[in-house]
Formats: sequence, structure tokens, C-alpha cells
Amino acid sequence: MGSGDDAAVVRARPVCVTSVDAMVDGVHFRLGDTASAADAGHRALAGALSDLAAMGADPGEAYVVLGLPAGFAREDAIALADAMAALARRCDVALVGGDITTAPVLTLAVTVVGWADDPAQLVRRAGARAGDLVGVTGSLGGSGAGLAILEGRAQGPSQLADRHRRPEPRLAEGRALARAGAHAMIDLSDGLASDAAHVATASGVTLEIELDALPLCDGVAAVAEQLGVPAWELGAAAGEDYELLVCVARAERYAAESAAPVTWIGTVHDGPAELVLLSAGIAQTVRGFQHRL
Amino acid sequence: MGSGDDAAVVRARPVCVTSVDAMVDGVHFRLGDTASAADAGHRALAGALSDLAAMGADPGEAYVVLGLPAGFAREDAIALADAMAALARRCDVALVGGDITTAPVLTLAVTVVGWADDPAQLVRRAGARAGDLVGVTGSLGGSGAGLAILEGRAQGPSQLADRHRRPEPRLAEGRALARAGAHAMIDLSDGLASDAAHVATASGVTLEIELDALPLCDGVAAVAEQLGVPAWELGAAAGEDYELLVCVARAERYAAESAAPVTWIGTVHDGPAELVLLSAGIAQTVRGFQHRL
Repeated sequence: MGSGDDAAVVRARPVCVTSVDAMVDGVHFRLGDTASAADAGHRALAGALSDLAAMGADPGEAYVVLGLPAGFAREDAIALADAMAALARRCDVALVGGDITTAPVLTLAVTVVGWADDPAQLVRRAGARAGDLVGVTGSLGGSGAGLAILEGRAQGPSQLADRHRRPEPRLAEGRALARAGAHAMIDLSDGLASDAAHVATASGVTLEIELDALPLCDGVAAVAEQLGVPAWELGAAAGEDYELLVCVARAERYAAESAAPVTWIGTVHDGPAELVLLSAGIAQTVRGFQHRL
Repeated sequence: MGSGDDAAVVRARPVCVTSVDAMVDGVHFRLGDTASAADAGHRALAGALSDLAAMGADPGEAYVVLGLPAGFAREDAIALADAMAALARRCDVALVGGDITTAPVLTLAVTVVGWADDPAQLVRRAGARAGDLVGVTGSLGGSGAGLAILEGRAQGPSQLADRHRRPEPRLAEGRALARAGAHAMIDLSDGLASDAAHVATASGVTLEIELDALPLCDGVAAVAEQLGVPAWELGAAAGEDYELLVCVARAERYAAESAAPVTWIGTVHDGPAELVLLSAGIAQTVRGFQHRL
């Protein structure tokens, strides 16, 4: 309904879903090194939208606070805004408000609002049940491998660097999986090992995941070899892949597969609220799991 | 409806009103000098809520991004959170989400969401009409005078410093003025001279304001004398008083006065979209108006 006023005014649907995400140069990216200004803008918006995807919400609006350091190049600011606008357009999100200020380093704080007609349409972290299958959309490890490439710690295809620089929020996949009856969902921002543990805790169940079943992006194994770590570590612990982890009743397996490209990587069991990571070589709970990257 | 999920979920009303506001140490305040951590938290939330007040919206939820520098004292972080929580409680706002990150300096980005049942209940900047009276709530100049005191440029009562450190968003006043039929409203964040000009521009009318009629806070004149500026400058140009400027039909004058403590300071005329500031000594349009503080 237009802006230019003290606040943006939007017609609401019955349920409002909101997430905020901040990214700061030197903390979440290194400007001019692991990310261009445009990458930083894209990633900040993508990270926030990924939370809406994990809820199965319809994306609505985005509000952006942009902190620009003194001397920030005008063309970089334009490239950043253009990258955010392009992602917003592709995701059917309206960029309707914001605030620009000076700041010591490039700082982005993004608020995204999504909508649903009924709370029952949304998927929480807390709904996983014993007997569910655990799946992930897309492929994993690309962002961690891409970061290693961008930081010069490994060599590999530019597609992996792109997975780190320009993650795509899985909005369509999230909504389709919600409609297909998903019991629980979360987006893989911190990494599967952390995020799956959140689902286990929220749902009060044991999640058992086969590390050897993780769908790794092409080229991840070669990067892992250069880094001297098992490939599953890039898939499970590096984070920022922004794929979705989903728990689905066995009976809904085919509905989920036709909703989104899902790979089944584990199962849900009655038991303590914890994550068990299984591999041919190891078996350990998340309590013993160390982030070694 | 609870959080701890990827996003916060809230039952919506038909019209959603959203504003974002950022405050950065060294830009909007100087931590430990013009503001404590608690002051900074209060002011960031108050500034955002003031925008909802200016729309006449009912406050709903707030989402806070907090960037904390390395070594930020735990007790300061708690004081900051407590100050925000106290203001939110007083304003009937639910603090339902946020993100905490490290940042080079204390950085706050606040998103507030308000609600209405019908867009017609909201008041824009664009509705001022020839013949309207122009009023302001409360009293002005306190924040500018208080900042001068906090910076050691003048001496004066601690109440003025408090006006700068802890502004109160005029939510109840904004809603009551909206119900009383206000044609246009804006909050005085930049200062009356800038903000009244926004109303003139948005409404396509001339706003004529009598500087000698500004309701100045007690003690502002004495601070202005120490600073060597006319007292009206603190009321019109210093900003951050977070009172509301309102345009009301003459016939609604008494309805507005019983809705909120309003002082009438000017009138709306057909003419170019500009602000004319009148005083016994001067008469100039906003084009010629210089911010001299």
C-alpha cells in the first residue's frame, strides 16, 4: 500500500511469520575477500528468507537496515542493492522499507515477513515423531568447500564458491514440503550437525543420521581431501548451505519426494533428545561431536 | 504463538504497519558519554515505536538485532536488554525475536510491527489540507538541550538530559489523535523544521509555523542562551524530541485537544509544497532554513 511514510503499510493475512538476520563485515564475511558487496547483500537477504522457507511460509516483505562505512564506493552500494532486489524479485518478496546509516564496517540487518492463512500450514522444529524419515533438500557441503576455495585454502570449481557467495533460499521447496505433510523442518544455516540437534531437542526425540548418506555437492570430496578432513564434515559441520532438513512420516515419503528433491539421510526414534551421527568409521552423539573445521 | 523456531509466528490483524530503525555507537550516540548501554537500547526501540505512533497504529511486536563489540560488559548487555524490555512492557509491545552478533561497535537495529483493522484508521503524512491547524504534542527542545548538557556544552536540569536519553514514544497520543480525525501526522525525529517540511511535501500544501508559539520544555531557553542560539532553534531544529506533529481540521480542534495535550503552532494553506517558519524577527521558507546547531 505504498511507503514514503513513517512506516510501511501492508495488507495482512491471518498469520504473520517474521525472521531477522544480521551480517557484519569481519564477522559473517570478509568484504573484498570472501564476499563482494553484492554477495553480502544477497547472503543477508537469503539467510533471512531461508528461515521463512523452513517454516513453509509464503514470503511477503523485506526490510533492510544498511550500515555503510565512510568511503564505501557508490557503485558497490548500487551493486549491493541490485543483488538484493534481484533475489527479492526472484523470491516474490517486496522490499518495502529500511534504514541507511553510517557504520564502522558494512553491516546488514534484514527483517523478512511471511504469511500463512492458518498456523496449521506452518512447520515447526518441534514436530518430529518416532518413525519419521529425515531428509535434506539439494546437496550439502558446497558452501563450506566454496569458502575454503575463496580463502585460498583449497582449489576447486567456481560453482562451489558460488554456493557460498550466493545461496538460494528454498522457499518453493519449503512450502511444497509443508503441503506434503512435513512434521518438522529447519534450514541448514549452522550446519546439519547443529541444526538437526535443534530439531531433536525441540521435538524430544533422537535423530539418527547416516553421514555416508549425505548428498554432497560435486567437488566437495576433492576439496575435503585437500583440507585433510572427511568429506562428510563439509556436509555436516561447515554450515551455510541453506538447504532444508525435513522430518516426514514414512507414509508421506513419496509425497515429499514429489514436492522437492529430497535425499533420505536418517530416521527418528524414541529416546533422549539428541542427535546420533553414524558412519562406517564412527558413531557418536552430538554431545561428542566436535566442529573441527 | 511462541518462538524458539526459525521465525516468530503471530496472529495478524488486517493491516500490518512496519518500521525499522538503526542506531550505531559513534553515529547516533556516544556510548559512555551521551548514552549508557541502557539508554541506547531504550532510544533505539523508542525511535522505532515513535513511527508507529505517528501512523496511529496499535503497537504489536518488536524484533531486535544487537551487535556487541568484543569485551562488551555482561552487565551492560543486561541493562540494555532490561531497558528495552521495560519500555516494551510499558508500550504493550512483545519482544518476540532477534539476532545477536559481534560488531565493531554497539549496533542496534529494531523492527517494530503495529496493527490496524482498517487502513482508514491510519494517518499518513499526505493528508494535510488547506485550513487545517498544525499542532504538536508535549513540549519541544528538551532533547537538543539535554544533548548539549550531556556533552558539557551547557548546564541545566537533569530532566532535560533525560529527555534526550529516554524519549517516550507517543503511542497513546498518536492513536487518540487518529481517532479524533487527524488529517496528517509525523513524529519529530529529525526536528520540526525537517519533519514539518516532509508533511508539506507529501501533502502538496504550505505549512506555516509560528516559531514563537513552540511549546518549549522548561529550561530550554536558559540552555539556548548559554549556546548563543535562539530558543526556537532547539525546539525546531535539534530533533529527537519524538513528539508528534499533527494537522487537524479547525472543526476537530477540541476533539484533538481532548485526545492529547496539543499546542497549536501553525496553519495549512494552499500554495507551494513548502514550510514557512515565522517569528517576530524572521520569516523564511524551509529552503532558506539552515540547521545551525
